[in-house]
Amino acid sequence: MTDATLADLRSRFAGRLLSAPEDTAPFLTDWRRSWTGRALAVAQPDTTADVAAVVRWCAARQVPLVPQGGNTGMVGGAIPDDGGRALVLSTARLNRIREIDPINNTLTAEAGCILATVQQAAQEAGRLYPLSLGAEGSCTIGGNLASNAGGVQVLRYGNTRELCLGLEVVTPDGEIWDGLRGLRKDNTGYDLKQLFIGAEGTLGVITAATLKLFPRPAARMTALAAVSDPHAALRLLELAQRRLAATLTAFELMSGVCVALVARHFPDCRAPFERTHPWYVLLESSDPHSEARATQAFSELMEEAFEAGIVADAAIAASLAQSDGLWRIRHHLPEAQSLEGDNLKHDISVPISAIGEFIEHTSAAIVAANPGARVLAFGHLGDGNLHYNVSAPYGVPQPAFVRANGAAISALVYEAVHRVRGSISAEHGIGQLKVDKNAHYKAGVEMALMQKIKQALDPHGLMNPGRLLPGASHRAH
Amino acid sequence: MTDATLADLRSRFAGRLLSAPEDTAPFLTDWRRSWTGRALAVAQPDTTADVAAVVRWCAARQVPLVPQGGNTGMVGGAIPDDGGRALVLSTARLNRIREIDPINNTLTAEAGCILATVQQAAQEAGRLYPLSLGAEGSCTIGGNLASNAGGVQVLRYGNTRELCLGLEVVTPDGEIWDGLRGLRKDNTGYDLKQLFIGAEGTLGVITAATLKLFPRPAARMTALAAVSDPHAALRLLELAQRRLAATLTAFELMSGVCVALVARHFPDCRAPFERTHPWYVLLESSDPHSEARATQAFSELMEEAFEAGIVADAAIAASLAQSDGLWRIRHHLPEAQSLEGDNLKHDISVPISAIGEFIEHTSAAIVAANPGARVLAFGHLGDGNLHYNVSAPYGVPQPAFVRANGAAISALVYEAVHRVRGSISAEHGIGQLKVDKNAHYKAGVEMALMQKIKQALDPHGLMNPGRLLPGASHRAH
Repeated sequence: MTDATLADLRSRFAGRLLSAPEDTAPFLTDWRRSWTGRALAVAQPDTTADVAAVVRWCAARQVPLVPQGGNTGMVGGAIPDDGGRALVLSTARLNRIREIDPINNTLTAEAGCILATVQQAAQEAGRLYPLSLGAEGSCTIGGNLASNAGGVQVLRYGNTRELCLGLEVVTPDGEIWDGLRGLRKDNTGYDLKQLFIGAEGTLGVITAATLKLFPRPAARMTALAAVSDPHAALRLLELAQRRLAATLTAFELMSGVCVALVARHFPDCRAPFERTHPWYVLLESSDPHSEARATQAFSELMEEAFEAGIVADAAIAASLAQSDGLWRIRHHLPEAQSLEGDNLKHDISVPISAIGEFIEHTSAAIVAANPGARVLAFGHLGDGNLHYNVSAPYGVPQPAFVRANGAAISALVYEAVHRVRGSISAEHGIGQLKVDKNAHYKAGVEMALMQKIKQALDPHGLMNPGRLLPGASHRAH
Repeated sequence: MTDATLADLRSRFAGRLLSAPEDTAPFLTDWRRSWTGRALAVAQPDTTADVAAVVRWCAARQVPLVPQGGNTGMVGGAIPDDGGRALVLSTARLNRIREIDPINNTLTAEAGCILATVQQAAQEAGRLYPLSLGAEGSCTIGGNLASNAGGVQVLRYGNTRELCLGLEVVTPDGEIWDGLRGLRKDNTGYDLKQLFIGAEGTLGVITAATLKLFPRPAARMTALAAVSDPHAALRLLELAQRRLAATLTAFELMSGVCVALVARHFPDCRAPFERTHPWYVLLESSDPHSEARATQAFSELMEEAFEAGIVADAAIAASLAQSDGLWRIRHHLPEAQSLEGDNLKHDISVPISAIGEFIEHTSAAIVAANPGARVLAFGHLGDGNLHYNVSAPYGVPQPAFVRANGAAISALVYEAVHRVRGSISAEHGIGQLKVDKNAHYKAGVEMALMQKIKQALDPHGLMNPGRLLPGASHRAH
């Protein structure tokens, strides 16, 4: 790419165009340093019209385009390949909150808005934007939408897909689709926004969205319950859903191994029980009425669960500090794993009814084939979503263990997921990490339907090529 | 179409093939007798594989195909045109409930299952399938999905789209896509089911679905509130959502004109207040805990609303009979309108915050242009969905009034909807009734995207041609 070409691009849009290696570097490696790519430049357009101008420039020259939000993805979906032909389109400067309508319970934000900024804006309007996940301080709304982000409150409020009422998108030929509607009911054709949500930038660039807001709960209550196994955790889930219905906002499973690992690296993060237990459940309720009513509902639930022999012990947080203490166990889990050395990660989902047997059989098979291997199972039980990770036996270095056994263990996990009609990517997406595995496990009819849609909307395969779908990258080269 | 051709079709699949006029007639006219079409025959395949065989037969001979469920649609979407070349594919014999998984809270039903049958099956498993609408005794799950049906509990549980986790679809080339997953999280590609839901049979034939179930509430509570105008109703909605959150399961607005009309035709269906009021709100809550708690929450809400000057009067049902009595006012509204003579109907949605001014301004404009015309406004206020109907002045026959003024009044209503970024079809769909109007109001970019998808999946335009999208019918002829 010549300087003249870049100068031509620079003249087409308002915003920044980064091309010096020290400027583009942060956009070419993901935050976990798993992938590094090359690009001819990084464009940061100021407005939706500027995004459209950049996309048209790319389309006219057959330049592949890689949209990028906060660069906090887990699957390399926003990092270009190493061909150096692609333009990275960063949404960083599309960072305005365009409108808040508290009566309609909607907020319209541009794609580059940080999730925490949107949460804050909703709060200042007396409302709740419930999407909540580890990266919320740096991930963007556009990235949340492109990857259909999940997080800890999906049980009550749904994935990002369910939180979006309208979209603004720049199509692969550089047109602007203004679908920013704030309607709960609209049956006037194909629900196009659903196609762009979760498409990981392969069908167009999301530039803004109208999001659902909710009333803020009057009280939040947290409890930790000790159970003997995942089957008991499922019985507790059934009871909690019956008794608390939609006030149950989180239901997180953690194995005793996980909780012990956190305690080892963060000595003040411990389960408040006299003895250790094989499994734990972290529950959260959000009550619209009062703290008193929330406490009563939790107390009655735990009493009933105890009498039915479902829980072995339980602690209900009596203060915000106690509640934070319980959540810290869950939130420190990723870091505790990092401190042990990066293990083998699987972000999977299975039907909730299949979780008990899935964990039992799969863990047994892994340990049988890899004596001493430690399965770290935790996740959003209420959504059927497990983070099912495998660590090396004590004393064995993680990298060597993963190199030697990772492929076989992952194959075992994904085969087990496939048998119960589960998903090999529950909330992280496909990106470049799982593109081959996904093509392997998905039925041919479904892959063909996806390819037809990709072909119809992006016939030259320029939008984030080689991500989500195989082959597009080769077509573009 | 010759007898030999029909015999050939009959030999390709298990099921029934109806071709005698007296057998096909019920499938060729909609239940409200607004549309009548012709068809070469009506096929009722037994299984998904038989549906695929019928679709392949049609594809090979370029025979247009019109899928039909319970034939309860409002927009003529399941009635063929009068060309007589199309085959009607009735899902009546696809009527098995394949699986209920109470722990996963899912139910898998074939497309021809009657909605009430599915509700009943869920209830017998101790669960709730919350979709509820007037036609529930005869409409089918397949029709609900193809039209993304709404109803009275959308406020809490969402439209049919939000109630579906997985689909089985026969594609326009007669392949079977088995997307019957029962997962709350699955980020492995484009969410294809969202494309078929609400597509009104123009992209393929839905043959089965995996649906979400919910815990059954411990208590249901109903209240009727009298308010001065829609603005007050909105303030009540805001308060009710804050105090009741997700236990608020219905919030229905009715004008005083509507309530008076019901009372005139059904003298035992009256608002339980000493005097009449200009507007009413029917509220329902579903509490997971107890009737006592539900009553308390409603009492506190109404007290607060009364003290804040939001409601003029309120009645909380003290028994199931009283609750039924309040709901009867709402449920008898369609029939009361019919008894007056069919009026001009608009199924619209607008941002909830715009409803007050929308009703005020639009009603004033209608009455100014048509002195004596009666606006009957009611609907699902919590979803921004109004059934905004217009009756002739007293003494003027409805049909003559609608013939003379219907087009102008509808144009006025839809222009007003369009100005506030509303929808000209909130829950009934497009079918043949609104295909031109939709093409008029929708942006060109959006229509072009829909046409690209239609072209990609159904290049010969054989699936329900001329419905939802304009032009396909002409292509097929």
